Amino acid sequence: MHRIKLIVEYDGSNYHGFQRQDNAHTVQGAIEKGILKLIDKKITITSAGRTDTGVHALAQVVTFDTDSKIPPDRWQYALNNYLPYDIRIINSELTSSDFHPRYDAVSKIYNYKIYRHTKGTTFLRNYALCNTDTLDVEAMQKACTFLLGTHNFTSFCASGSTIRNLERNIIACHLDDSWPFLTLIIEANGFLRNMIRIIVGSLLEVGRKNIAPEKINDIIKAEDRRVAGPTAGPQGLYMMEVKF
Amino acid sequence: MHRIKLIVEYDGSNYHGFQRQDNAHTVQGAIEKGILKLIDKKITITSAGRTDTGVHALAQVVTFDTDSKIPPDRWQYALNNYLPYDIRIINSELTSSDFHPRYDAVSKIYNYKIYRHTKGTTFLRNYALCNTDTLDVEAMQKACTFLLGTHNFTSFCASGSTIRNLERNIIACHLDDSWPFLTLIIEANGFLRNMIRIIVGSLLEVGRKNIAPEKINDIIKAEDRRVAGPTAGPQGLYMMEVKF
Repeated sequence: MHRIKLIVEYDGSNYHGFQRQDNAHTVQGAIEKGILKLIDKKITITSAGRTDTGVHALAQVVTFDTDSKIPPDRWQYALNNYLPYDIRIINSELTSSDFHPRYDAVSKIYNYKIYRHTKGTTFLRNYALCNTDTLDVEAMQKACTFLLGTHNFTSFCASGSTIRNLERNIIACHLDDSWPFLTLIIEANGFLRNMIRIIVGSLLEVGRKNIAPEKINDIIKAEDRRVAGPTAGPQGLYMMEVKF
Repeated sequence: MHRIKLIVEYDGSNYHGFQRQDNAHTVQGAIEKGILKLIDKKITITSAGRTDTGVHALAQVVTFDTDSKIPPDRWQYALNNYLPYDIRIINSELTSSDFHPRYDAVSKIYNYKIYRHTKGTTFLRNYALCNTDTLDVEAMQKACTFLLGTHNFTSFCASGSTIRNLERNIIACHLDDSWPFLTLIIEANGFLRNMIRIIVGSLLEVGRKNIAPEKINDIIKAEDRRVAGPTAGPQGLYMMEVKF
């Protein structure tokens, strides 16, 4: 047996998230089905993170063990033949048998895209949050700085989460303003459930001048989901990179 | 009765083209179904042009007659509630009762997008032709100039077409090179079946140095579909504007 590491790009629009479910179309389900078709063996894959329904990935990291004779670097070509066009393996290689894409991840980078133009929204409906409100982008950029560092992010975690350690370290957080897109680029040692989407929902409230940028400090300290902004839609979120 | 003119944006990825068909999902079918749901009356719409399966539009022009009391400028909001998210009415207004979106069109502008990067093709699979061949873009741009003017475009018309007048006037034809996109911007008084896609297929042959740019002249003169390049896929094609 040897361990294969895949880098996977997927358009999450038509999937009920990454994690396999019995009666839903998922990215994990589609990849495992592709492997089954390719080598006629049932295999369970492990990923660096479970993206939600409608969330995209440019470089999800996936591993699995196999005794197949397919050379590790050929897996990308072989497997792509058995995958739908909205999931593509962009790299495959041999990795050490103790490598784990989630436990060994040091940090992850996500982008969140907001599209501000009124034109072309039909085409971007699944690929960005379409928002034409007047936004104070400088205030939003200032608010980003208060999120940096190690904090208890309970206020930015979906209520009902059963995770016990709600402390995370945000290493980078900035908002790139390139008309017609606003793109949040955020890196952390890990993310809580819906964390980035609640951050975006809160930043938009800052942009609309409903929350002052400094108020982000108080929202963090409150450790209460109800004081942060609403959860922004999944369609603007992209898993960009996992660092090991 | 009065005539309403709609400007319609649609993502053609999930449609079997514009024209209504009995057993297929079409843009016309979806719009007519939306109107039926809105005003409880069966109405037939007329368009400026029938786009093929997978072809997109930023500004398709559609008209229909109605005695509905919905104010003409409110149709866009009212009808959008009854349309799928990949079809959006972006403007509605009253037009004269003898206005015809096809017969009154003076020219039409289409764009064809070619995506040259190896990254992100998963997301652009339905929105551009993905091509990573080495291309001589200057040769392609030169070839564009030979297409300008009034010619018999039999060589650039899908075989089997029953249209009698195969003469068309190409008013503008140039290739914009903005990495990672190559975009053909083409305006004509009308287009034959698959004409732009055959032009793109031929320009790519020029880019690959399989056809010299000047050869476009001979291809036009041959009046024979077999001497032009292959038909490029529909996914890069966008109806951009209809001029009246």
